[in-house]
Amino acid sequence: MPHITLRSDLYGITSVLDYKQRTARPICDLTQLLLRGPSSLTEAERELIATYTSYLNDCTFCQTAHTAATCLLPGGDDAVVAAVKRDLETAPVSEKMRALLRITAKVQKSGSQMTFEDAEAARQAGATDLEIHDTVLITALFCLYNRYVDGLATVTPTDPDFYQGLGQRITTRGYAVPPGGYQPFVYKK
Amino acid sequence: MPHITLRSDLYGITSVLDYKQRTARPICDLTQLLLRGPSSLTEAERELIATYTSYLNDCTFCQTAHTAATCLLPGGDDAVVAAVKRDLETAPVSEKMRALLRITAKVQKSGSQMTFEDAEAARQAGATDLEIHDTVLITALFCLYNRYVDGLATVTPTDPDFYQGLGQRITTRGYAVPPGGYQPFVYKK
Repeated sequence: MPHITLRSDLYGITSVLDYKQRTARPICDLTQLLLRGPSSLTEAERELIATYTSYLNDCTFCQTAHTAATCLLPGGDDAVVAAVKRDLETAPVSEKMRALLRITAKVQKSGSQMTFEDAEAARQAGATDLEIHDTVLITALFCLYNRYVDGLATVTPTDPDFYQGLGQRITTRGYAVPPGGYQPFVYKK
Repeated sequence: MPHITLRSDLYGITSVLDYKQRTARPICDLTQLLLRGPSSLTEAERELIATYTSYLNDCTFCQTAHTAATCLLPGGDDAVVAAVKRDLETAPVSEKMRALLRITAKVQKSGSQMTFEDAEAARQAGATDLEIHDTVLITALFCLYNRYVDGLATVTPTDPDFYQGLGQRITTRGYAVPPGGYQPFVYKK
């Protein structure tokens, strides 16, 4: 049961964004820019950073939703996501992505854990400064999301179809709030 | 030295917001809504939540800047901020603020640390659901900020006048980005 009164037909992040719609808009705008805006990282790569952060923060709702989104996008692969969660060092990802996800693992704990050597290793593997910046900010954003979702004890569905439906929505419509206001994903079985 | 190339005349959060101005706008809009928007918590109380989160995350730039902002606002008091950092349980704050800051201490670690009993204790002390929500979201936002600032190793000034100047700015002009674009605080000695 959530720690505050939320709409009972909504789940996870959608229930708290719906609770305070004014703050939903900038949160969703930031997410749209980082995960769907112009970038030299693919959308699947950026969703993988979000997924890995949420996995490290042990946020079931976010890691399941963004795993679904990653796998629905071109280049996304369920086996790769599972391998990254199991052991980043042996997962079949590019050396650039491995270096960026190592940064995620540091920043998820604390910003001060990240070193100049971590950034330099990512550059050696082909990452740009902007990609390093975006990796840090996506990780930081999901440290926000994971705390928002679990801090208020939002409801985490167990039905995989829920996450497929939410994944479909965020990979086709994206994250931005329409001009008319926040429209939460309502799951219809 | 920052981990990526940032403007050398900017410090802390201002240098990374300036680096990617498109994402600066929603981050600043969210901050303006949470710390300056309509609320039954005073601006000083909300800045104290931001300060305490940044203190717990050991982010020198953010905790110093928001300590300055807290103390410049009506009801803000340097001795109270220092007492909260030293020991929340004995600090001279209202029982409502103590209960909300206990929630901050939980959520700073992980969303799942917060319990229904924590929320109920805050309600018993007079907090509303919206105040509990805002406490969780402000804490989550500063978990983002602290990682953004320290993860890229932005420069932390040692001159107290810098933080007084930045505190003056965020307590008079607020956080929102002007229509023309992000205008970083440039410190002139």
